[in-house]
Amino acid sequence: MSEIGNLSSFDARRKIRNKEWVKPTSGMANGYVQANLAVLPKDLAFEFLLFCQRNPKSCPIIDVTEPGSGVPALSAPDADLRTDIPKYRLYKKGILTEEKTDLLDIWDENMVGFLIGCSFTFEEALIKNGIPMRHNEEQCNVPMYKTNIQSVKAGPFEGPMVVSMRPMKEKDVVRAVQVTSRFPAVHGAPVHIGNPQSIGINDINNPDFGDKVTIKDDEVPVFWACGVTPQAVAMHVKPEIMITHSPGHMFITDLSNEQFGVL
Amino acid sequence: MSEIGNLSSFDARRKIRNKEWVKPTSGMANGYVQANLAVLPKDLAFEFLLFCQRNPKSCPIIDVTEPGSGVPALSAPDADLRTDIPKYRLYKKGILTEEKTDLLDIWDENMVGFLIGCSFTFEEALIKNGIPMRHNEEQCNVPMYKTNIQSVKAGPFEGPMVVSMRPMKEKDVVRAVQVTSRFPAVHGAPVHIGNPQSIGINDINNPDFGDKVTIKDDEVPVFWACGVTPQAVAMHVKPEIMITHSPGHMFITDLSNEQFGVL
Repeated sequence: MSEIGNLSSFDARRKIRNKEWVKPTSGMANGYVQANLAVLPKDLAFEFLLFCQRNPKSCPIIDVTEPGSGVPALSAPDADLRTDIPKYRLYKKGILTEEKTDLLDIWDENMVGFLIGCSFTFEEALIKNGIPMRHNEEQCNVPMYKTNIQSVKAGPFEGPMVVSMRPMKEKDVVRAVQVTSRFPAVHGAPVHIGNPQSIGINDINNPDFGDKVTIKDDEVPVFWACGVTPQAVAMHVKPEIMITHSPGHMFITDLSNEQFGVL
Repeated sequence: MSEIGNLSSFDARRKIRNKEWVKPTSGMANGYVQANLAVLPKDLAFEFLLFCQRNPKSCPIIDVTEPGSGVPALSAPDADLRTDIPKYRLYKKGILTEEKTDLLDIWDENMVGFLIGCSFTFEEALIKNGIPMRHNEEQCNVPMYKTNIQSVKAGPFEGPMVVSMRPMKEKDVVRAVQVTSRFPAVHGAPVHIGNPQSIGINDINNPDFGDKVTIKDDEVPVFWACGVTPQAVAMHVKPEIMITHSPGHMFITDLSNEQFGVL
């Protein structure tokens, strides 16, 4: 994996554009910010952007394209969101209709692409601080749960916050809060520490998305707002068309993780 | 002034709504976040919000109303932006046509109100840290300057960043960076410290907006991104109609300054 990890963001995207890499992007182009994708029609763009602005912990906006453009001009000016993600999901009226490896035949002038921060950035910071990620150790997806925390509504967009969970030793919890507080633009500090039921999670061993991970006896579950929230909320609106990345198949920007630290 | 300072945000707004207070709001309802106002037609709302999202240091969004509504639901749910600011300015195609004390006769279904953070919040934090504000001592407005720092464009919105300047003792500069870094939602850390020419300011004694203040021999000018930026940029687009607060006549929210600290 280290060869893939050492790629520049440009080279990683080129591999993906050439369809030489049609796999999850975890571990690729280490140090570069990876992002979630949501593509929506222009007539929903203002209210979706407003939803993200009102819910910055779950929906941290990294970049937004001009309507009709596939270019994320601020985060990767030579990239194209229509080709530079390994796998896309196409939803019509909220129903998954297709997985595709590019969007060239379905993109139109009306589409706006939103890149939303993902947890890889703060996970790298946690790992560098000696706090291991159980879902990495167990080689699965991070567990994610719907909560009873309501997002702040904007136009038709509303719904519960989705959180991801990482178990850790009690002694690491304070440091985890400090480390992730530095990165408000990629989910930031945890939203909850400890008892899952306090935020409406009844069965910690039965996540709504991703995979179950082991929580050891001396460990505390720590919960972060998750970028699945805006996708789930947008899907609920049943737009004529909506496009996302396939889970784990992220967009790799030219921004470095460290640039997102506020201090 | 202390009676005014001790008012709750609700009582301060009520005084303003009843036109018992048609003066600047500095020193009113201490501890509550005050905000700049920009009202634009809905067809410009997405691109203006995107401009703010791309330029968070100069355009920190506090709240956005639903189109047609005067209610800032997140920051002051019982307020009304059409009546609760002491003085408004009405611009048509970028030209100031009128000052008004309410908007009841000109508001329409098409209007979107944007509340944008102002420097009062971080100034309070600086003062509490023993760093005095020269423009307060000299009882004038903070000096503001156009810079050669270009904002990131969004649709028709573009133009230079406007900054405000506060002189301080060299020994206070590090603390000023730390203190204001805690408040990224209200301009955050300085954008520049020291030589004005480095950011395109040729005559520090001749500000583009506000008033000149004294810079003593042992002092350093420190520059922050300023909420005048989005107003100046929007004006440049010459919208059919645009409404702002009159300088110094701000909107008082129910949010406390301290709530905006990220750590």
